[in-house]
Amino acid sequence: MESAILIIQCKDQKGIVAAVSQFLYFHNGNIQEVDQYIDKDTGDFFMRAKWELESFAIEKDQISRIFDETVAQKFSMNFSLHFNHPKPRMAIFVSKLSHCLFDILGRYFSGQFQVEIPLVISNHTHLQQPVEAFGIPFCHMPITPENKSEQEEKQLELLRENQVDFVVLARYMQILSPNFIKDYPNRIINIHHSFLPAFVGAKPYHAAYKRGVKIIGATGHYVTEELDAGPIIEQDIARVRHHNTVEELVQIGQDVEKVVLSRAIKYHLARKVMVIGNRTVIFN
Amino acid sequence: MESAILIIQCKDQKGIVAAVSQFLYFHNGNIQEVDQYIDKDTGDFFMRAKWELESFAIEKDQISRIFDETVAQKFSMNFSLHFNHPKPRMAIFVSKLSHCLFDILGRYFSGQFQVEIPLVISNHTHLQQPVEAFGIPFCHMPITPENKSEQEEKQLELLRENQVDFVVLARYMQILSPNFIKDYPNRIINIHHSFLPAFVGAKPYHAAYKRGVKIIGATGHYVTEELDAGPIIEQDIARVRHHNTVEELVQIGQDVEKVVLSRAIKYHLARKVMVIGNRTVIFN
Amino acid sequence: MESAILIIQCKDQKGIVAAVSQFLYFHNGNIQEVDQYIDKDTGDFFMRAKWELESFAIEKDQISRIFDETVAQKFSMNFSLHFNHPKPRMAIFVSKLSHCLFDILGRYFSGQFQVEIPLVISNHTHLQQPVEAFGIPFCHMPITPENKSEQEEKQLELLRENQVDFVVLARYMQILSPNFIKDYPNRIINIHHSFLPAFVGAKPYHAAYKRGVKIIGATGHYVTEELDAGPIIEQDIARVRHHNTVEELVQIGQDVEKVVLSRAIKYHLARKVMVIGNRTVIFN
Amino acid sequence: MESAILIIQCKDQKGIVAAVSQFLYFHNGNIQEVDQYIDKDTGDFFMRAKWELESFAIEKDQISRIFDETVAQKFSMNFSLHFNHPKPRMAIFVSKLSHCLFDILGRYFSGQFQVEIPLVISNHTHLQQPVEAFGIPFCHMPITPENKSEQEEKQLELLRENQVDFVVLARYMQILSPNFIKDYPNRIINIHHSFLPAFVGAKPYHAAYKRGVKIIGATGHYVTEELDAGPIIEQDIARVRHHNTVEELVQIGQDVEKVVLSRAIKYHLARKVMVIGNRTVIFN
Repeated sequence: MESAILIIQCKDQKGIVAAVSQFLYFHNGNIQEVDQYIDKDTGDFFMRAKWELESFAIEKDQISRIFDETVAQKFSMNFSLHFNHPKPRMAIFVSKLSHCLFDILGRYFSGQFQVEIPLVISNHTHLQQPVEAFGIPFCHMPITPENKSEQEEKQLELLRENQVDFVVLARYMQILSPNFIKDYPNRIINIHHSFLPAFVGAKPYHAAYKRGVKIIGATGHYVTEELDAGPIIEQDIARVRHHNTVEELVQIGQDVEKVVLSRAIKYHLARKVMVIGNRTVIFN
Repeated sequence: MESAILIIQCKDQKGIVAAVSQFLYFHNGNIQEVDQYIDKDTGDFFMRAKWELESFAIEKDQISRIFDETVAQKFSMNFSLHFNHPKPRMAIFVSKLSHCLFDILGRYFSGQFQVEIPLVISNHTHLQQPVEAFGIPFCHMPITPENKSEQEEKQLELLRENQVDFVVLARYMQILSPNFIKDYPNRIINIHHSFLPAFVGAKPYHAAYKRGVKIIGATGHYVTEELDAGPIIEQDIARVRHHNTVEELVQIGQDVEKVVLSRAIKYHLARKVMVIGNRTVIFN
Repeated sequence: MESAILIIQCKDQKGIVAAVSQFLYFHNGNIQEVDQYIDKDTGDFFMRAKWELESFAIEKDQISRIFDETVAQKFSMNFSLHFNHPKPRMAIFVSKLSHCLFDILGRYFSGQFQVEIPLVISNHTHLQQPVEAFGIPFCHMPITPENKSEQEEKQLELLRENQVDFVVLARYMQILSPNFIKDYPNRIINIHHSFLPAFVGAKPYHAAYKRGVKIIGATGHYVTEELDAGPIIEQDIARVRHHNTVEELVQIGQDVEKVVLSRAIKYHLARKVMVIGNRTVIFN
Repeated sequence: MESAILIIQCKDQKGIVAAVSQFLYFHNGNIQEVDQYIDKDTGDFFMRAKWELESFAIEKDQISRIFDETVAQKFSMNFSLHFNHPKPRMAIFVSKLSHCLFDILGRYFSGQFQVEIPLVISNHTHLQQPVEAFGIPFCHMPITPENKSEQEEKQLELLRENQVDFVVLARYMQILSPNFIKDYPNRIINIHHSFLPAFVGAKPYHAAYKRGVKIIGATGHYVTEELDAGPIIEQDIARVRHHNTVEELVQIGQDVEKVVLSRAIKYHLARKVMVIGNRTVIFN
């Protein structure tokens, strides 16, 4: 069943909810989900509304224009309109570790992720066989300090060719350059293997072991220029005990990583994530 | 700051959100919180809206009538209107165990619970001293099979005299009779010391030990005639290990019980709980 | 590095720990892990010791006999001796749902599970392609009420031929007959998609939705004749909210199921699970 | 029932467990609990054994000497011997926030904490009434930059006079000077209101809000000279959502703080905490 999702962000003003719900009601929209949030500190208003397209009185390609003219302009809204067809297109970047990749591919296989995966890019060949077994093209693009910016250009080219909507870094062990990131603002999802902001950077499980924490975690976030500092989409944790070695922390942590990353992708796919400064609103 | 909360329940129909938000907007209501939920199975619509009274154009004692005439009747709404002043009045029933009582009294002392506690009723004297140390009247009402219905009548009389809005059973080891319960529909909150529906009835920690579960829990729910079967407001759990004795399960469980009960009270106080059949909608 | 694991169960008596540790010390065993547990209710004693084989003074094939003669008989011990080479052999039974299977295969691929998987058996062909993509033989054995006992005989035959040590039911939608179960006591691991003992039997997510629970769970347990009543190895949970549909409970629950099942397998592989009556001791 | 607890720390050597268990067995000790841990990185060995005193063949006041001569010296062990009678003596330091204090007092009242509380010290009078209602002396000792070192001297004097074994900082809003800390190494337990090492220092809930984390936490740790950097005893977390204000984070976090602090006290009281460098071994 085809549905539309409207995402709205503007300064909080009286009458917004009334105007939007009136718009949908007037044009015979059957609302399925609607959420709002008012940020008291900043005075920002956020809204997400999902409704069925079948009975809607406005043609699919006219909704945006008409909403803009009759509602959005009056409230100086930033808004975006999304449909569940065609499916969004997601590229996956991996290195050697397979747990996040397999978790995503499993959901893709079972239909839990309504997404197209036109390609997987990796700086290693380690995961080529399983990716291709799922019928997905695998691009091996090794990275060295010398070829990095050149390879990134090629990667961006590939993303464009494949009309990729967003990128998932499924334990991709390379830091993307600002030049790459700026093309996909709030559209690159990374999984960091710590409970951010604790243990930013490399080897967080070693750092967690050394600090003697009793709980480890993982963080799914949008990538920004500052390392591991982008807006957090989802986090989760697992208990560890004194006798767990670093290797055991890694194994326990991987179970958290893969579930957190897949939840972040799920929220992103459902257009439930909105970014305000460095925070996220998650309508879940 | 004084605010009003409107709780609405009706059959889902197009235009409800528009009408309610239009009503608040038209009368200059500054919305602080608004949540809706549509139950797809039953076709029921739920809404909770909170707004500041100061700037609102309708007098406090006229809101209900005007909303009824201009909005509610049109949609055949069940609605209720609440204000944060005066504070709701809560009675606590206890037996001998102190952990839930102390947790509640601590929040009362610190101002976290915006509530009046006109009395604590107990079938034992064990907790009289600490209750009175908090300046709260303590009524000792022992229960035997013979005097139970007579004592319940006196308890109901006490609740009426003290204008009690809702009752909290903070590990009260007596089963209330249907006659008592019917006077406070969805207004008696009980904490059951298991993860319902597992281990209904007496001695759930013994049953949990015997079954060898790896996780124990607690459930805050409204009391209905059927034992431990009322609408669930909140649940939480704790991990246990094979070496934990029943006594340790009890101690570990009590930490869950008290936090779950206090969360259930908090949601009830904030009018965030709505009941549909035997399920709850929690706008949290 | 090769190591040995000794699992001991007997009535608690003074001197057991001394005798076992003396045995290992005397024969130059370098202890890596040692755990004990005394069940106060039953008076049972449990112990697990793991040590390096390299420096050990007794030949691998003599350890069992010598331990029996010099220690076990004196304390009337039940004991078993295990080595990490050769790897245990695990058969997987599946139906149509892929999430648990993929989770296991992912760990097998990455080397997290030190196990051989000689075959996957299924009553459907849905998962044949991905299983074979991992290089694992897939046996399609459809089950009808008429052919069930015959097919089970063939399955048992296949397990014997393949020298299978234990069986994992990764959301296998068939109830094994007592005849099958008795051949693999405490060696068939099932994942049940509820927080047992809540919601035994079919369609637990529907039951959870209907009951309005705020937390759902999954349970990994050994299969016994009584449905969903065998010794629990591991459990975990996830929070759900009123707006989650049954379909969403299923998706949220699957993430719990797969991690719980894989943890249960991990404990079983490491010989960390001991069964006492209907409870488990987990030396983790 | 009186019991003894032996805590051992030394370099890992073959035969330790055998020697200790032989010692207890030989002198007719009925072991209740025994745990070991070998830190592979450092080669350190840790052990905790608890046994009944009644049947033990050595007089209470001779155990330490005889264990030292017959076992400890041979292995160059650091060891300490503890009895559950008389009860340990705990001082509590508080400022204005009551939640951790009330949680501790509740457990003290119910007998869950087998401890004496000879005094509560505070730099404010806010909590004087409830403390005295529990029959515990309350010492008001205001702190200013000018009088701090003088007041700390008086506090140390009070601790000595009251034969205090360990100190609990139950949200005490003062930083203890190194001079104070050195007198109670690994005997001052603090609760920090964040999931350390995230958000060290003041106002962690504000920092958590600003960073947009999806989970907040609390950390119970021993106090060392470096702020919030001492060995972690226990941690726990709670989920938060985008709409939670800083004030709500504070309330949600306080429920975690009080339970984490009380668990840390419980482990400390049961002599289950051992410190190695900046990490803890928790035999729980």
